Amino acid sequence: MRNIKLVIEYDGTNFVGWQIQPNGRSVQGEIKKAIKEITGEDVNLIGASRTDAGVHARSQVANFKTNSKIPTENLKKALNSILPDDITIISAEDVPQSFHSRYSALEKTYKYFITTKKVAIGRNYIWFVKYKIDFEKLQECAKLIPGKHDFEVFAKKGSNVKNFVCDVKEARWEREDDKIIFKITADRFLYGMVRGLVGAMIDVARGRIEIETFKKMLFEKFNQIKIMHAPGCGLFLEEVKYATSTQKELSSTPQNVIDP
Amino acid sequence: MRNIKLVIEYDGTNFVGWQIQPNGRSVQGEIKKAIKEITGEDVNLIGASRTDAGVHARSQVANFKTNSKIPTENLKKALNSILPDDITIISAEDVPQSFHSRYSALEKTYKYFITTKKVAIGRNYIWFVKYKIDFEKLQECAKLIPGKHDFEVFAKKGSNVKNFVCDVKEARWEREDDKIIFKITADRFLYGMVRGLVGAMIDVARGRIEIETFKKMLFEKFNQIKIMHAPGCGLFLEEVKYATSTQKELSSTPQNVIDP
Repeated sequence: MRNIKLVIEYDGTNFVGWQIQPNGRSVQGEIKKAIKEITGEDVNLIGASRTDAGVHARSQVANFKTNSKIPTENLKKALNSILPDDITIISAEDVPQSFHSRYSALEKTYKYFITTKKVAIGRNYIWFVKYKIDFEKLQECAKLIPGKHDFEVFAKKGSNVKNFVCDVKEARWEREDDKIIFKITADRFLYGMVRGLVGAMIDVARGRIEIETFKKMLFEKFNQIKIMHAPGCGLFLEEVKYATSTQKELSSTPQNVIDP
Repeated sequence: MRNIKLVIEYDGTNFVGWQIQPNGRSVQGEIKKAIKEITGEDVNLIGASRTDAGVHARSQVANFKTNSKIPTENLKKALNSILPDDITIISAEDVPQSFHSRYSALEKTYKYFITTKKVAIGRNYIWFVKYKIDFEKLQECAKLIPGKHDFEVFAKKGSNVKNFVCDVKEARWEREDDKIIFKITADRFLYGMVRGLVGAMIDVARGRIEIETFKKMLFEKFNQIKIMHAPGCGLFLEEVKYATSTQKELSSTPQNVIDP
């Protein structure tokens, strides 16, 4: 039995998300179907992140076990030749049996793209915020985020996670012309968490809520204000990091995490 | 009677092109419809370039005459509020009666985007070329283009233009990671001309035709080889230049040109 790791780029616009669902196209579903067409096997395809409807990925990671003897380079080419245009396999490689795309992940990085000027070109990859934004306030908010916090307030309901503590390594805003970009790296993310954080910070930056309120959400789980969740189209899964082979054995402790 | 100039951004993916056609959504059709909804008038909306199906514009220019008294800033806002998401009005301004978005144009700039690595994100804005490309050859070709040439060989059939001579001010290729970008500025363009030039240059760069053949096409109208037209998705109308008000009176000589 081989264990194959895929790195995948996708445009989430026309998907219900990563995960197979009763109705609608899912990224997982399309790739599973393509693997079946090539290997004849109905594999268990595990994704590092269960990205939501409309959310994009520059490097989603997934793995599956197979008895197929097809070399990984040929497998990659075969998959790309039959997959729809909105999914591209960037790489395929044989990895140790212990590798699990979700449980072995050490950290993940997401970026959220905002434009303050309405755009037609690329509108499926960015959130148009029509409010006047105080960029300094965004930065003040972001500075509070790194560290271990309980992020339940920012998450969406509907996952069966019990532990809401995430360890955020980095959180910062950058500005490029009319674009504002939020970058966040953490060991794990809760369902809807990045979109909740972005929505709340925009609420602060447009003057709808006080930065003190945001602080209370973050440090005291204050939940008396309804959080705005930024739309999926602006969110990109940028990177999933694993221990390199020179590092100690890959972690294999299930973390039971659902992603943004 | 006022003369109003619009600068327009659009994503050409879901349009049959700029111009109104019997079947399918056109950019001109959508904007005319929106103007009618706001002013009640059935205006003659003239575009600087008749961009083709799938072709995008960062700054298309159009103008129309109206009796409406709506200030331009309000007109812009009203148009943006009812136009579909793939069209954005960047600006609206009152211009002299003599201004004609097509005839008054001094020069236009197009860019063509190519990727040598298949992409899912942004695939509607770039042409994926799977051949091995010799970038030096692309540059050698581009160096031959500036100046006055008869470009009929590179154009698509089907326009009623009689004069095929265009004066190219600039033509060059640039490279950014896996992206290759062609930039061309000329006083006028023929129907399908940029896509024909790009297709022919890619044919040279992948070794399908000799650079000598490309030269003969350009200087002697050699037409014994079928030209490949690069797809519309990679093409962007970047800029239309007009004489500034400090310059001499705007040209008003019709040039009878159909665009790429």
